[in-house]
Amino acid sequence: MVVCHNYEVLVVPLREVGSQNQAGFRPKVVVTRNLGPDVMPLLYERSDLDLVLWPEDRVADRSWLLENIPGAAGVLVMITEKVDKELLEAAGPSLKVASTMSVGYEHADLSELGKRGIKFGYTPDVLTDAVADLSVMLALMAGRNAGQVITLVQDSKWPASPWAPFAFCGPQLSTTPISAKRTVGFLGFGRISQATLARLVPFGITDCVYSSNPTSQPTPSRDEALAKKHGLKSLRRVNVDELARESDVLFVLAPGGPTTRHLVNEEFLKKMKKTSILVNTSRGTLVDSDALGKALREGWIWGAGLDVVEGEPHIAADHVLVKEPRCVVLPHIGSATLETRVGMATLAVQNLLAALDGKEMPASIDLSNRS
Amino acid sequence: MVVCHNYEVLVVPLREVGSQNQAGFRPKVVVTRNLGPDVMPLLYERSDLDLVLWPEDRVADRSWLLENIPGAAGVLVMITEKVDKELLEAAGPSLKVASTMSVGYEHADLSELGKRGIKFGYTPDVLTDAVADLSVMLALMAGRNAGQVITLVQDSKWPASPWAPFAFCGPQLSTTPISAKRTVGFLGFGRISQATLARLVPFGITDCVYSSNPTSQPTPSRDEALAKKHGLKSLRRVNVDELARESDVLFVLAPGGPTTRHLVNEEFLKKMKKTSILVNTSRGTLVDSDALGKALREGWIWGAGLDVVEGEPHIAADHVLVKEPRCVVLPHIGSATLETRVGMATLAVQNLLAALDGKEMPASIDLSNRS
Repeated sequence: MVVCHNYEVLVVPLREVGSQNQAGFRPKVVVTRNLGPDVMPLLYERSDLDLVLWPEDRVADRSWLLENIPGAAGVLVMITEKVDKELLEAAGPSLKVASTMSVGYEHADLSELGKRGIKFGYTPDVLTDAVADLSVMLALMAGRNAGQVITLVQDSKWPASPWAPFAFCGPQLSTTPISAKRTVGFLGFGRISQATLARLVPFGITDCVYSSNPTSQPTPSRDEALAKKHGLKSLRRVNVDELARESDVLFVLAPGGPTTRHLVNEEFLKKMKKTSILVNTSRGTLVDSDALGKALREGWIWGAGLDVVEGEPHIAADHVLVKEPRCVVLPHIGSATLETRVGMATLAVQNLLAALDGKEMPASIDLSNRS
Repeated sequence: MVVCHNYEVLVVPLREVGSQNQAGFRPKVVVTRNLGPDVMPLLYERSDLDLVLWPEDRVADRSWLLENIPGAAGVLVMITEKVDKELLEAAGPSLKVASTMSVGYEHADLSELGKRGIKFGYTPDVLTDAVADLSVMLALMAGRNAGQVITLVQDSKWPASPWAPFAFCGPQLSTTPISAKRTVGFLGFGRISQATLARLVPFGITDCVYSSNPTSQPTPSRDEALAKKHGLKSLRRVNVDELARESDVLFVLAPGGPTTRHLVNEEFLKKMKKTSILVNTSRGTLVDSDALGKALREGWIWGAGLDVVEGEPHIAADHVLVKEPRCVVLPHIGSATLETRVGMATLAVQNLLAALDGKEMPASIDLSNRS
């Protein structure tokens, strides 16, 4: 597939689709967003389906969704649509599958889906590389003062900022002869963490520490193999205290939710090195924003790069972290590349169609024990 | 060496140094900038030298330099000080060595130095990793719309920018199953280019093309070995036309000066892919700013990341490239990391002292054919 890069304006014509009340002849599928010129043909070519598509390039109105879902066999949603009891009751017993174009599914009530025997698809894995890329980018940006210097240029202050031996200098990601050890840490050590680690190896990373869900089994042979593959001096699973103390760059890459809320708090941040960098590209809830603001103001750590912030998207210029000059804040663009979003949309459509066709879904959550 | 990270305020006390007229007893060395707590001790411990140090944390006044240079045996300068005929004449025949804390030496008149038999030291190589790090960072930032999204957050526009399938999406640096080929290009293929290439390998880069100074010899066996080492499908030296056409990400990493001026011009940019990224971390003169502005406005290429701009530092908010939303402009911070700047300052001092001590300088320019 050659990915079309002209997504600025979605140019896919909205095909004439069956009116919302023709269900019964052909199974109805409701899709809450135009998925662009690379992916929509996968739906348009299915003339055996009655496609009902939200026609605008913005989040679908809930009222439109509730009005169109009755009698649907399948629904394809974004992370912006709640798949809750109300929606499922409105859909009625015809609904076989809900498919989300996201790796997260906090917006879906798995228990209600399971009770009704509705299959549920999501899009894991396809965004691993995009988020790993962004994690490396944020580690570099936080160390190199990217936020401050971009603002300096945009504020016309470059002419008045002559070269100085240590101007804008921060800790270097790459090792150097005078600073030959670099330990990267991972809070959570799943696919994205491992893809991030792999990208950091040629920067001269020497050691790796990680913490995992305490209930998970240790994997010493996997760890040994990874260390060997990457030529690391060590790769160890540690407790969160050691993780905080040893990491030069710490990547937060763990699931959100109540059990991981504020794992990175004042106590944790106080243990970190003064020269360390914190990167969060997973979920905002893992980091206590007030504690991180204090850590940056008081120099407990050197800098931070965040793609996610607790309470997003309600984050304004006066937010404690947006105000910090050594904190780079991005608006949750971890998976936002054309290739990855096309991959996610494709997988979401494949999940939807497979379930409707009675085939195995490429990526689904097993809800059999939730019914 | 453990690098001190407290450079925000230079805390090195200025030692009592010999007055400027005491030369004769001890060789005088003039140093135009405080080099910080890691490096100044290398000078302070040399009680056999008469150290004259510019006392302020800003660029040394030319008048101060001209007043203090007479009778000096050595001078250590920054890129901000011209080492020209006027300075050398003011120094007089005592001057044995000029040492610059920079890899570039456009500020030094090598011919005038050579004529007088003055040795000249500079600081190559030590900044290779810092510039390679920044090159990767800019490639990622340009593809991921970093400039636009940082501004969006700082302008409090995140709350009004709900998730959308293709919002802020650009071309992905990493390969993906649906986009499995990625060619990086290098205009100039010296140490920094090769260090940048090495860092990109785990992103799934498949091919590499480069152009070198046309008078340089081809190096097919080196190229073959590099391709093999990095597991690339191909690594080829090409002409600039092919370089423009084939690169998904093009890194400009060649020397400045009249022979390379505006190598990246309208003609070059028109040949590039619409989805390509241009990164310049070498010298601003290599890229025609007006042509690049046009290329970005008209969509000939996708984005650009620049650490250098022709005419810097006189680059304000209304500059044709600062105005472009898909152009990230940084204020020439390529080597600006604590580790690297300490490494550069250390090498500059080592060059100075070696020449004064009649030893071999670690990094000098051979001026024997310039006299």
